[in-house]
This record gives sequence, C-alpha cells and structure tokens, in this order.
Amino acid sequence: MTSAKRLAYLGPAGTHTEQACLNYDAEANRLPFESIPAAAAAVDSGQADEGVVPIENSIEGAVTFTLDLLIHESSLFIRRELVLPITHHLVAKSGTRIEDIRVVYSHPQALAQCRLYLSGNLPNAKAVASMSTAAAVREMLRGVPEAGAIAAKRAVELYGGEILAHGIEDNPNNMTRFVVLAPNDHPPTGDDKTSVCFSFDEDAPGILYTVLGEFAKRAINLAKIESRPTKQSLGRYVFLVDMEGHREDAIVQEALKRVESHVSTFRIFGSYPRCIPPS
Amino acid sequence: MTSAKRLAYLGPAGTHTEQACLNYDAEANRLPFESIPAAAAAVDSGQADEGVVPIENSIEGAVTFTLDLLIHESSLFIRRELVLPITHHLVAKSGTRIEDIRVVYSHPQALAQCRLYLSGNLPNAKAVASMSTAAAVREMLRGVPEAGAIAAKRAVELYGGEILAHGIEDNPNNMTRFVVLAPNDHPPTGDDKTSVCFSFDEDAPGILYTVLGEFAKRAINLAKIESRPTKQSLGRYVFLVDMEGHREDAIVQEALKRVESHVSTFRIFGSYPRCIPPS
Repeated sequence: MTSAKRLAYLGPAGTHTEQACLNYDAEANRLPFESIPAAAAAVDSGQADEGVVPIENSIEGAVTFTLDLLIHESSLFIRRELVLPITHHLVAKSGTRIEDIRVVYSHPQALAQCRLYLSGNLPNAKAVASMSTAAAVREMLRGVPEAGAIAAKRAVELYGGEILAHGIEDNPNNMTRFVVLAPNDHPPTGDDKTSVCFSFDEDAPGILYTVLGEFAKRAINLAKIESRPTKQSLGRYVFLVDMEGHREDAIVQEALKRVESHVSTFRIFGSYPRCIPPS
Repeated sequence: MTSAKRLAYLGPAGTHTEQACLNYDAEANRLPFESIPAAAAAVDSGQADEGVVPIENSIEGAVTFTLDLLIHESSLFIRRELVLPITHHLVAKSGTRIEDIRVVYSHPQALAQCRLYLSGNLPNAKAVASMSTAAAVREMLRGVPEAGAIAAKRAVELYGGEILAHGIEDNPNNMTRFVVLAPNDHPPTGDDKTSVCFSFDEDAPGILYTVLGEFAKRAINLAKIESRPTKQSLGRYVFLVDMEGHREDAIVQEALKRVESHVSTFRIFGSYPRCIPPS
C-alpha cells in the first residue's frame, strides 16, 4: 500500500489554489502554507512531496513571487502545470437577499475582477479587503447580517454560506496556470513543455535575438517569454522562456546547449506535460 | 508670463512619486490622484498638462497597472522618463529611541524592502500596512508614542517627525523609473528611446523572432522586452519593447513600418529623451 502524496500549497483551504490541488490529486494529503516561499520550503525540507503555486493569470499576468522564487531562491523543478478557470461567486448567509447586502468581503484582486458586477448590482455596498477569498467567507459568516463575500465554490463547501450569484467575474476568460514544484521534473510524454531562465553579463542587446534564434532555427516553438529584473541594477533583466518539447529531446538539448554558451546565468526550471487550457 | 505646468501624479504628497515630480519640474503645480488611471484621466480631460506615474522598479519589476493602462485604455504618449533612487528612512516622533519602537507603519512593499533591517534592529516591532509611505508617517504621528514609519524624506519635510535611521532598504540598487504621460511625445534630442507594443492574431511563435529581427538587422538596440496578457485568453500576450532611437529617425521609422506589417495590433507609446540611471 502506498501512502498518499503530501501536497503543500498556497493556502488557506477553500481558495482556487486548493481547487487546483483537488483537480490534480484528490487523494493527496493537502498542506496549506501562508506564502509561496513557505510552500516551496516545505518541499525543499521534505515536509511535503510536491508544492502547488500559481504562476500566471490570464488577466493579471505573471505571479512575480513564483517567478522570483524560481530565479533566485529555489532549486526545485516544475514537474507539472495545471490550468484552472477562475470563477467567482457572491456568497452570503442563507436567506440573505442580494439587494440587502451592505458589505462585501474579498481579496482585493477578486474585488477588482468583479468591479462591474458590484457597481451594477451592489452600488452601495462597501468593499472590505480580506487576506484571501476563503478568509472572506469566514469573515462574512462572522460579520453583520447584511454581509457578502466573493469566493470560490470550494470555500462554500468548506465553510458554509449560500451562493447568491454564480460566475460574477467581469471577464469570462479568467484562468490561472499553476505549477507543481518537486525535487525532480517529469519524464518525457511526447507532448511536453520546458521552462528555462537566463541572463547576460553585459549590456548586449543583440544577444537576446541570437538566443531566440537558437530556438527559431530548430523550429522549437516558444510558448512564452517574460522578463524580470535581476535586482542588481535598473535595466538588467533575467529572461524566462517556455518552449514546446522536453529537455531530453535531442533538438531541445542541442538548442539549450547553444543558449548556455551565449548567456552568463542559465537554469532549467524543468520539463513537464503540456496542459491545454479548457475552452 | 507663462503659468506653471499642471502635473498630475500618483499621490499622496510625500511619496517617492512626488519626489520624482519635484526633480522633474519643481515649479509645477502638483495635483495628487488616488490611482494611476485617475492621474492619466486628469491629463486626458485637460485638468492637468502632464501626469507622472511609476512604470518599473529595479527590484519589483514592471508596474503592471501602468503597462495595462498604456496597452488597453489610454491614448496618451510617454513624453519623458525619470529615474529616482528609492531610499527608505525609519521615521518616528522627535525624541523616540529606535529600541523603543513597537509598531512600524508603511506600505507593504516598503515593509518588504526593509525586511532585513527590521528583523535585525526591531525584531519585536509589529508591521502594520498603510496605503502609502506618506500615509504611514501621518498614522505614526497620530499613533501610540512607540510608533515608527518607513517613508521617503519628502514625507518628513511635509508632515514632520524625525529620521532615526537613513537608507534602511535591504537592497541598495533600489531605483524606480517613472514616465511622464502627455498628449504628445517629445521631439528628437539625439539620445532618445521609443516604446511600442504589439500582439499577434494567431499563435505564431516564430513571429516574435521575425519582429525582433527587424530591429536586429538595423542595429537598433533594444533596452527592454516585456510581455503582458491580452486578457482574452491564457497564453496570448502583448509584447512591449523599448528601443534606442526616436520614432522620427529614418532607421527606426523603417523598422516600425516593417514590424507593423507582421503584427495584428500595434501602438507607439512615444519617443522621449533617454534618462541614464544615477550610479
């Protein structure tokens, strides 16, 4: 008998991140942590087998905490990517009517993502910041009778309350990509992605073009290119590239070897099965 | 007699953004606004002549609010760039001793940027979030006697208090780049930069390389490349490129014309004098 996987994640329970964990491995022993670095540290120390953290949202963009962790602090690998549609619900105590709600709790990002719904349906309600959408439901349940919260369905399953309005996010194309961090990346499956980062010692603007050429001339498709500050001086960047293919594929291996010869710092974050966003 | 320029900025008074305004035009009539879009809207409506907003920090990276405003909402131009070293000070009521401080107010980003100083010198002080470093000084002055705040020197000049420790930021390479938004960009000076953004209709990973090639083969140096979500679907991006040269330079004009032929959306944010970061 094998014991359940220990899965660290950015908590608390009841958020979209916990839902991503459930979709990934419903049998896992889920361990919530207060921050992205804390979830990664739990994997580093062996307290957890793997860690689930958000890396990119289709509206907000990159989760820079996760990128900077991979660039500067962690030596963990990306073993999987997970894509979850983000759906926000208006939650209140059972029996509350939408028109009676005077206070709406949620994480500032969720409040911002439901701005049009709130101004159209609850123009007089006061928005109050919570540390997470899950904490918002707990605060709503403890708060005045005329309180509402914006949260994921999972928070209602865990903490209670009633969903008064489903899918109130302003932009229906709201999706978050999560990564599973682990001591090792994933073996080849035939439909994989590889993530790397690199930087240049000197200010050599042509080098980025040369590096991208190593991929282009081998017909390696790039899924994403992102830049982050080196934190050493304004105008110096670390580049993050996601490409199609596995780092054990001969052609990817050859390209990465050439890239390494052009750059001053280089790290492979890992290869993992490609996840097609649900449409 | 010409009247003073009306300069909208991300307020309140006493922040590093106000300091950037003072360095740019000390005679201007400064108008603080509560958000980056509000400062831009004031220029759009004619209430202000120009607006100053942060666009990039050497540690935190891009100010995504400003990038998304330029991509999706505003038709203002970047007329100038300004670079300011970010220096945080520990401020308290006159006569307070560092070892007596029990509460430290500041914006969460400033608290995070002084984490090592705080844990080394004020291990028992409680960190409390303020909406800005300037608000932190006002809250400290109204608060318990054992309160401190982390803020810019300008906040002390405006609101009072005494600087107990200078330059307490953990990373000495902390600089912010601001842009001046205006109805028109800047005429050529001979040492300019140009900022543009573009996106692709279909998923054509080779196109980015082709586009960068239009700059590379004309020896146009790229100062920065950044990607932001289109907000329409996960995995589709708008690319932002800063290059050396003015959009009226023949070679830049030619490259931009060619770039425009490869992409599906294209906007020139403007050309402006290059600002060398102080070293």
